[in-house]
Amino acid sequence: MHVTLVHVQVKPERVDAFIEATRVNHEASIKEKGNRRFDVLQDATDPGKFILYEAYATAEDAKAHKDTLHYVKWREQVAMMMANPREGIQYQCLFPK
Amino acid sequence: MHVTLVHVQVKPERVDAFIEATRVNHEASIKEKGNRRFDVLQDATDPGKFILYEAYATAEDAKAHKDTLHYVKWREQVAMMMANPREGIQYQCLFPK
Repeated sequence: MHVTLVHVQVKPERVDAFIEATRVNHEASIKEKGNRRFDVLQDATDPGKFILYEAYATAEDAKAHKDTLHYVKWREQVAMMMANPREGIQYQCLFPK
Repeated sequence: MHVTLVHVQVKPERVDAFIEATRVNHEASIKEKGNRRFDVLQDATDPGKFILYEAYATAEDAKAHKDTLHYVKWREQVAMMMANPREGIQYQCLFPK
């Protein structure tokens, strides 16, 4: 599995709007070819801190996510909600295979 | 879902041993009550950098993991493999519910 952790810091007054936009992205993303996980995590101690945990069968499947309409809409919607630019970090998932 | 990300930095010469010990922990952990995910991630650019992505139905299920024999054995096995103390960060998983 090819995994990306997307770290996002949201402006305090935009947290609810971010969660709603990301819920829509989640619902569509889990239906994509090769998607294994699209978990939306909120930090237990900082409600403005989020991680999108995105796992795909292959790097190609992960790349295809960025060409979907729901991703492009999400990216535009949340651009002004973030306190600073989001950061995506790539991992190889060793287990499960 | 109650999620913990455990960040681990492993000494370069112990990476293979860490992966094997963590594979055994993974195999047992995914059979625990309430376990939803126990993904073992290796950083794409730093092979000594790992994240254990642990998701349980409830905080109680997550807590019970620390009382299992396989967790205690893993903790002892990897103690000397780590370059510095591991760090666990708690999240609430908003989606999926």
